[in-house]
Amino acid sequence: MKIKVINPNTTVSMTQTIGSAARAIANSTTEIITCNPKMGPVSIEDHYDEALSVIGILDEIRTGEAEKIDGYVIACFGDPGLMAARELAKGPVIGIAEAAMHAASMISTGFSIVTTLGRTRIIAQHLVERYGMTRFCRQIRSIDLSVLSLEEADTKKAVLAECRTALKEDDCGAIILGCAGMADLSIWLTDALGIPVIDGVSVAVKFVEALVGAGLSTSKTGDLAYPISKPFTGSLSKFVP
Amino acid sequence: MKIKVINPNTTVSMTQTIGSAARAIANSTTEIITCNPKMGPVSIEDHYDEALSVIGILDEIRTGEAEKIDGYVIACFGDPGLMAARELAKGPVIGIAEAAMHAASMISTGFSIVTTLGRTRIIAQHLVERYGMTRFCRQIRSIDLSVLSLEEADTKKAVLAECRTALKEDDCGAIILGCAGMADLSIWLTDALGIPVIDGVSVAVKFVEALVGAGLSTSKTGDLAYPISKPFTGSLSKFVP
Amino acid sequence: MKIKVINPNTTVSMTQTIGSAARAIANSTTEIITCNPKMGPVSIEDHYDEALSVIGILDEIRTGEAEKIDGYVIACFGDPGLMAARELAKGPVIGIAEAAMHAASMISTGFSIVTTLGRTRIIAQHLVERYGMTRFCRQIRSIDLSVLSLEEADTKKAVLAECRTALKEDDCGAIILGCAGMADLSIWLTDALGIPVIDGVSVAVKFVEALVGAGLSTSKTGDLAYPISKPFTGSLSKFVP
Amino acid sequence: MKIKVINPNTTVSMTQTIGSAARAIANSTTEIITCNPKMGPVSIEDHYDEALSVIGILDEIRTGEAEKIDGYVIACFGDPGLMAARELAKGPVIGIAEAAMHAASMISTGFSIVTTLGRTRIIAQHLVERYGMTRFCRQIRSIDLSVLSLEEADTKKAVLAECRTALKEDDCGAIILGCAGMADLSIWLTDALGIPVIDGVSVAVKFVEALVGAGLSTSKTGDLAYPISKPFTGSLSKFVP
Amino acid sequence: MKIKVINPNTTVSMTQTIGSAARAIANSTTEIITCNPKMGPVSIEDHYDEALSVIGILDEIRTGEAEKIDGYVIACFGDPGLMAARELAKGPVIGIAEAAMHAASMISTGFSIVTTLGRTRIIAQHLVERYGMTRFCRQIRSIDLSVLSLEEADTKKAVLAECRTALKEDDCGAIILGCAGMADLSIWLTDALGIPVIDGVSVAVKFVEALVGAGLSTSKTGDLAYPISKPFTGSLSKFVP
Amino acid sequence: MKIKVINPNTTVSMTQTIGSAARAIANSTTEIITCNPKMGPVSIEDHYDEALSVIGILDEIRTGEAEKIDGYVIACFGDPGLMAARELAKGPVIGIAEAAMHAASMISTGFSIVTTLGRTRIIAQHLVERYGMTRFCRQIRSIDLSVLSLEEADTKKAVLAECRTALKEDDCGAIILGCAGMADLSIWLTDALGIPVIDGVSVAVKFVEALVGAGLSTSKTGDLAYPISKPFTGSLSKFVP
Repeated sequence: MKIKVINPNTTVSMTQTIGSAARAIANSTTEIITCNPKMGPVSIEDHYDEALSVIGILDEIRTGEAEKIDGYVIACFGDPGLMAARELAKGPVIGIAEAAMHAASMISTGFSIVTTLGRTRIIAQHLVERYGMTRFCRQIRSIDLSVLSLEEADTKKAVLAECRTALKEDDCGAIILGCAGMADLSIWLTDALGIPVIDGVSVAVKFVEALVGAGLSTSKTGDLAYPISKPFTGSLSKFVP
Repeated sequence: MKIKVINPNTTVSMTQTIGSAARAIANSTTEIITCNPKMGPVSIEDHYDEALSVIGILDEIRTGEAEKIDGYVIACFGDPGLMAARELAKGPVIGIAEAAMHAASMISTGFSIVTTLGRTRIIAQHLVERYGMTRFCRQIRSIDLSVLSLEEADTKKAVLAECRTALKEDDCGAIILGCAGMADLSIWLTDALGIPVIDGVSVAVKFVEALVGAGLSTSKTGDLAYPISKPFTGSLSKFVP
Repeated sequence: MKIKVINPNTTVSMTQTIGSAARAIANSTTEIITCNPKMGPVSIEDHYDEALSVIGILDEIRTGEAEKIDGYVIACFGDPGLMAARELAKGPVIGIAEAAMHAASMISTGFSIVTTLGRTRIIAQHLVERYGMTRFCRQIRSIDLSVLSLEEADTKKAVLAECRTALKEDDCGAIILGCAGMADLSIWLTDALGIPVIDGVSVAVKFVEALVGAGLSTSKTGDLAYPISKPFTGSLSKFVP
Repeated sequence: MKIKVINPNTTVSMTQTIGSAARAIANSTTEIITCNPKMGPVSIEDHYDEALSVIGILDEIRTGEAEKIDGYVIACFGDPGLMAARELAKGPVIGIAEAAMHAASMISTGFSIVTTLGRTRIIAQHLVERYGMTRFCRQIRSIDLSVLSLEEADTKKAVLAECRTALKEDDCGAIILGCAGMADLSIWLTDALGIPVIDGVSVAVKFVEALVGAGLSTSKTGDLAYPISKPFTGSLSKFVP
Repeated sequence: MKIKVINPNTTVSMTQTIGSAARAIANSTTEIITCNPKMGPVSIEDHYDEALSVIGILDEIRTGEAEKIDGYVIACFGDPGLMAARELAKGPVIGIAEAAMHAASMISTGFSIVTTLGRTRIIAQHLVERYGMTRFCRQIRSIDLSVLSLEEADTKKAVLAECRTALKEDDCGAIILGCAGMADLSIWLTDALGIPVIDGVSVAVKFVEALVGAGLSTSKTGDLAYPISKPFTGSLSKFVP
Repeated sequence: MKIKVINPNTTVSMTQTIGSAARAIANSTTEIITCNPKMGPVSIEDHYDEALSVIGILDEIRTGEAEKIDGYVIACFGDPGLMAARELAKGPVIGIAEAAMHAASMISTGFSIVTTLGRTRIIAQHLVERYGMTRFCRQIRSIDLSVLSLEEADTKKAVLAECRTALKEDDCGAIILGCAGMADLSIWLTDALGIPVIDGVSVAVKFVEALVGAGLSTSKTGDLAYPISKPFTGSLSKFVP
């Protein structure tokens, strides 16, 4: 089974972190292919970054379909372009926020999310609603540090500290890491806190494996049917479906 | 006051229809500027089209800010890129679905939406939820004809027929036209049906006028603050905020 | 265009404050007519006051219709009698809580409300639900001072202080003033806080202008049709529709 | 125990129907006092009627408090003035829609409502939301005949026919009669249909008995505290709390 | 009228406390029969205890039906087995959490719950949702002491202290005691706090009296019809309906 | 990895059908252990059957823990005893309704459920709410035939016919089979209908594999901690945790 894990920003070191997390838990028969767009923002921290990352994501899905990819993971906690990607792909496409929230609801009665910049919380909040997770989400927290600073030790400590606060104040049974750049922290944090700390990249890969393994692919009836073929003009002409 | 009305698809005749509707109801002191992106889909009928229209919308907002535009209308019933556009703009940005639903809730206790292709209903449904309009929305209907066919007489008749069905079956007090390409039909339909038939383009223009007139602009505190300045690579490098 | 702005309590100085706010932002072609009932409570601070203000509001709508008023604003943050007023009026009728919440949802992702007495918060809470604004409302706060004290400097300072707390604690992008008596404070507060502070009276006037300008009036199909003609006995006999 | 059952319209024969239903099921130690306002509409069939009935209801509560009434029933399916009445009364005040819905949720997993005129359905719909009964309400139906026609045999047959349709189509386990004027029909309908058909008047009386019997009265802490004492001017001056 | 009040745990002293509370408020014509299962947990403090108490509850309903019981109260705040019990019983079956929440919504605009162990709060939370009480529930609090310790004076003091905190912080108009073992505390707490403190056992008994008195029994149409007759094997063979 | 798939009813042939479906899609490194309780109902078709199946489920979890089972599937579409089972188990426990709904929400924008007897629909409806799936569930349908008749050809045809109706009328993108006894029908139905038809048993097994593979187990912090050790009396004494 070939799973393409798309980092929607253009920072290659983050693609590598994501790839390591994915490969560490993939089945032995799963091939993990990682990528990031050639154009777009170096990190995704607001609606604007997210909106401009979608074109790159769809380009990766487009080429992925030619490569017979079995399923996709969109590895940014805003799950950008998810519905459009599902229209374009034959196999399942899962966002890491989606995967993490679904998993958390299966092993706890309520979760908190710990993310990076404060302004990204509203994006997580909207996804909580979109996935029907309102009754499971206890709190959305941020460390108010940037995505790219996650490679620094101090930022990792800030994540740990915020998780401790969540554990103390939120009455939560699990913590979700609200950024793909935190993919390498979940084991360390689970050990430190004694509570499941969920990395969406790992869970999303496993859920794609699960759906493909159960013979399920994206429904092509109705809402998520392949995009309608029509002219695309100008610099977007290659996107004609 | 300068209001920029953005048709997110690349079909110029549709931009003209939208512009006529906007100018017909604008205040005498309002200047309506219409535009459409140079690249992208000729019509927006699925999530994929919508996702790929956002880059063009943001480009129009970007240039609009340089031109001291006071407020914007996104003239596609999926309200694509609305949150990102709000981050980028100083003044208000309103989507036509948003405007139509808010207006309908002020003059009736429940509305139905009549849109084009069946698969666009899910997009409307998600917007109903996003704007808190679930308790006002009675039904979302489609004529199962394409956006670009709206210029044909038969398609207009199909819209009228579907509105009649809505009036008979949905217990609705108002009907919302679910496509910017229907902007020229609302007066004809209101007369034919004896019920308010709402064109989102008109109402969105009036609401932008209202907000600007009341001294309100997009909040730059927190979630909708200007985008964070950071590198954008490749073909998107001009989008650095 | 003639817009009647109804202060539902009997305090004339408050009617004047409301009138000033309305005229300051109305279009040059709009005539603002202000009024307050001759009978009823001097201020509206609980469900009981509100319930007893409705008869006066409906009397003003009744006479307004004879005067060919184009639209109405109910200038009390509980939006008393809104549905009954809509039945009685041909043109749009908008409550100031309704207007403020809709506007706030268009320029921010979440708002807080600052009102007077603590017990009025439940009225605001119920309106938040009625207008579908639950997902936009972050907090409802009160200064625990009476409506009529709003003319005193200390009360104004208390409003400012409570807004500051909202800004600090509620993660809100806009603040709504929860009393018509605060109509003269929004510019001062916006300047002091650097965040949109919304006066419902101003926005309601602009929204009535917008709806009338877009050719929309209250739906007379179904739920909001004119009241059924029938006998009214005793002191209410003049209310026969 | 003294329970005052208030018919909010001015039709005496309907007050008698309501009184008979109440006395038929009251405990032997309960005294049922019935009344209707001297002024107001002869029937309540829209928001306007309802709004204008509130002044009469509050007048009855006001005098009831002087008479040491233990609890009240508001016997109109719109539950007009309920919150204001609760502020004014020491003992419990229950609306018949409220009582019927709560009862139905305790003996079935879902109910349908059968009411008179079609336009009253929106009032019932809003009460369903207010009482948290959305997940229990399957359908709201009307016979499209007036309240006062309920004394005619043909109207009773229409109610039976609509109940049969509800039973067949709505997957409901109980039916609620959506008008106090139907109070004499519940036993006949229950027998005819073999499903609980709930008259709100009866259940509301029993629930007032239950609350008083359990030592519970309206909370005077916070939201429902007695109305604030203040001047009321003009013809409403007697309403000073 | 015969009402069977079932304590689902096996602690006889708690059955006696519950019985005393029930008899203290029952009508003179009501016979209160109390019982507890012979097998199962000595107290119910988690989902596991609750799940294993259901078999005992159903056994009591089964024998109750043979004894022509008119209605039942399930006297544990998790309302275990409520739906199954309703299928088995002809008359009404009411849970004490259900009764308390419905009563609180009739005498206040919002309530807080004070329960025993922290982990039981999630059970209360799920019931709040099940009964449509989300908009009435302000907070769910616990004293973090066990059910069986409720017979000790220190635990009673802890309940009082937590109620005081609720009164101060939660903006609630009533407090619900979240455990049948607190049935003897409501009068003392109401006196001490000056706010209605609701014991679910008392209210449930009164509501069963009310429903039976209004001629209502559990709907046997559809969802709550008598259980389907079929083989039960092994140690559960006596449960064949 | 060892996964125990529990059929909560006592019909061995149904356990075999479930086991075949589970083994057909399990990873090669997964050992599927199937079982059913020795006591209880031969099929689960109402709340009563479900309630009485829980004791058998918990007995299987209890023994499973001693056998170092890595995760569990509760193979009945009512997901009976799920929360209690989670308290008792170290590894993940997933219900087949839960798994099917989560999977359907990842590959479509809306699903319909096709179940057996009409009265089981309310159980499915309550689970839809519990899992936050209200916005994804389009319709819950039944064939009005018993669970045990699923082994007959005519019943299979009835399932197919009902799925066809769902596809035509419900605007759904996927169909969920609402009974573990339908586990052998999903491939046949998917082929016949050209839309994903989801068997919860298969997906639940894959999701347990996914969670265990991602290093996740049931949270033992707070709500789902191991059951509190305490006496259990009589025939349930072996259930002392």
